[in-house]
Amino acid sequence: MTVKKVTFADIARYTNFSKTTISRYFNNPNSLTEKNRQIISDALIKLDYHENKLAKVLAQGSTEFIGIIIPNLYLHYYSAILENILNSYQEYNYKFLVFVGHEDINTERQYIKELLSYNIEGLIILSHTIPSEELASYKIPIVSIERESCYISSVDTDNYLGAVQATSHLIKNKCDILVHINSLPKEDMPAFNRITGFEEVCQDSDIPYLIYNKDLGATHENISKNLSHMLDDLEEKYPYETKGIFLANDTYASVFLNLIIRKFGELPDKYQIVGFDDSPIATESIVPLTTIQQKIPTLTQYAMEILSQEIYARKNKLSSEIVHREVPPVLVKRETTH
Amino acid sequence: MTVKKVTFADIARYTNFSKTTISRYFNNPNSLTEKNRQIISDALIKLDYHENKLAKVLAQGSTEFIGIIIPNLYLHYYSAILENILNSYQEYNYKFLVFVGHEDINTERQYIKELLSYNIEGLIILSHTIPSEELASYKIPIVSIERESCYISSVDTDNYLGAVQATSHLIKNKCDILVHINSLPKEDMPAFNRITGFEEVCQDSDIPYLIYNKDLGATHENISKNLSHMLDDLEEKYPYETKGIFLANDTYASVFLNLIIRKFGELPDKYQIVGFDDSPIATESIVPLTTIQQKIPTLTQYAMEILSQEIYARKNKLSSEIVHREVPPVLVKRETTH
Repeated sequence: MTVKKVTFADIARYTNFSKTTISRYFNNPNSLTEKNRQIISDALIKLDYHENKLAKVLAQGSTEFIGIIIPNLYLHYYSAILENILNSYQEYNYKFLVFVGHEDINTERQYIKELLSYNIEGLIILSHTIPSEELASYKIPIVSIERESCYISSVDTDNYLGAVQATSHLIKNKCDILVHINSLPKEDMPAFNRITGFEEVCQDSDIPYLIYNKDLGATHENISKNLSHMLDDLEEKYPYETKGIFLANDTYASVFLNLIIRKFGELPDKYQIVGFDDSPIATESIVPLTTIQQKIPTLTQYAMEILSQEIYARKNKLSSEIVHREVPPVLVKRETTH
Repeated sequence: MTVKKVTFADIARYTNFSKTTISRYFNNPNSLTEKNRQIISDALIKLDYHENKLAKVLAQGSTEFIGIIIPNLYLHYYSAILENILNSYQEYNYKFLVFVGHEDINTERQYIKELLSYNIEGLIILSHTIPSEELASYKIPIVSIERESCYISSVDTDNYLGAVQATSHLIKNKCDILVHINSLPKEDMPAFNRITGFEEVCQDSDIPYLIYNKDLGATHENISKNLSHMLDDLEEKYPYETKGIFLANDTYASVFLNLIIRKFGELPDKYQIVGFDDSPIATESIVPLTTIQQKIPTLTQYAMEILSQEIYARKNKLSSEIVHREVPPVLVKRETTH
């Protein structure tokens, strides 16, 4: 399984050109005649020569590498973002070195050090735990997604708008009581605005509202147990009212829906449910979920645009501004609301 | 946002050593005294020097890059395998260049060409469409997962054993009729053995059986429509019998379960369901699914072991054999069977 590497010397010997001529073929082809280019090109095929881009990019100083650090690939939101970023190869031709950071600050630091030693041209980091001030200190083009980003460029869903869309939809559908369920997002995270948006729309209306904001746990079992207590609490406090429930993501919404159906055998009219994300579970749940769709292709497209502009600016020693872009989400109406 | 690169010349000037001494510090540190090593090490911190691993690996001829080509990250099975491979960095220190191939043969070829130009040391390819004979012709260490692999090393779940486990479990639970639902896997794919295993166990028993093997479609809507027809067909043919149903994956099993519950308001005793994979939907479905668990951490561990052995053999010009390993799956009993 070993393969002999073909060198410039081999090509020179085969074609009777000098090694300098062979080098010019790769680095300045227009300095050769059409005829000589053809001779060398034929020889490369005959000799089964493989281009060594590494040597070339090293000489030119641009590796075309972008580093990606992502917390996990278990959540569909992350794997969908990663897939979209990787697909951008067809447009930008960047190659991606990918690491799973597990939301651990020292793991993230170790990976950034490794990536820097491979001369990456830029970094995309999702839901990072390293403060953005420290990330900025690495002095490379960086775009963050869905976390605190005071000192670096970022792309986020407009979470406030999403919450406004969900809550207004439940109000329009004449719910008697509005409920938001969330799991203690930090106040400097973009997702915290799902709570703010819900609360402000409720306060503008005259409809009573309730927020359950507690740690729901990381396992399906714990999430299910916690949501079951909330369902019991709602049934006790508001047995006859129409309850409009906006949950922080589709996974919670689907678990909550399953609990209702296991209790009543169907989804009764007195429950209306809106999720967040439009992940696959939203269509695959037992009753298709009304939800707030995050525009993942747009998020990743903006991230790549901002990053490639910063890379261009850095190469050409231009200054570049920190950019924050928000992507408006969309209400997708399915069968858990009227 | 530009940053000045610190060169060996800068370090030499700062420390009053020659450039040769600085080079020896990096490439043969033991040739320097402890004291001189300390002086240089301090200077590196002062000058904010970043190691350029690319230049180093290029000189040594090993990039520590492994290429990964994966069909998509939409299916949880693929994103779980990718996450496990990326986590192996902590053990093997390989860096991963990742591409999404979309099961398109020309896209896969383009990515392999790109990866070869970056001197990857090995390749892991999942559910490839390029024939294994062509993959072998690239003459680099390769491990394939879950596809035809006559000419290259591979790691697969023992699909035959999984089908035997599922079918035997349904027989033990006294089902009157055994049903397998699949979506036209190709005969040279390891997953085809889910059909073979089911059929052989059924033939050994005296219980009647039925196989629905047709293209169920790629969207949730089409899968749901096709499975709904099968449910109607079963209700018509076997209204009173206990039906033991083994589906090719947990997604199909969950959709089928939802159809039953929307029809009957609950999962009646006359239906027993077994899925395949143990993906998250198996625990998150409205009734937790009995399923055949693929051991993804073991699959990826074997893949990395085989690949790193082939890389070692290639570097040391040793011959290496093609290796095929099968990982036994496990029956996980939950609430859709007795």
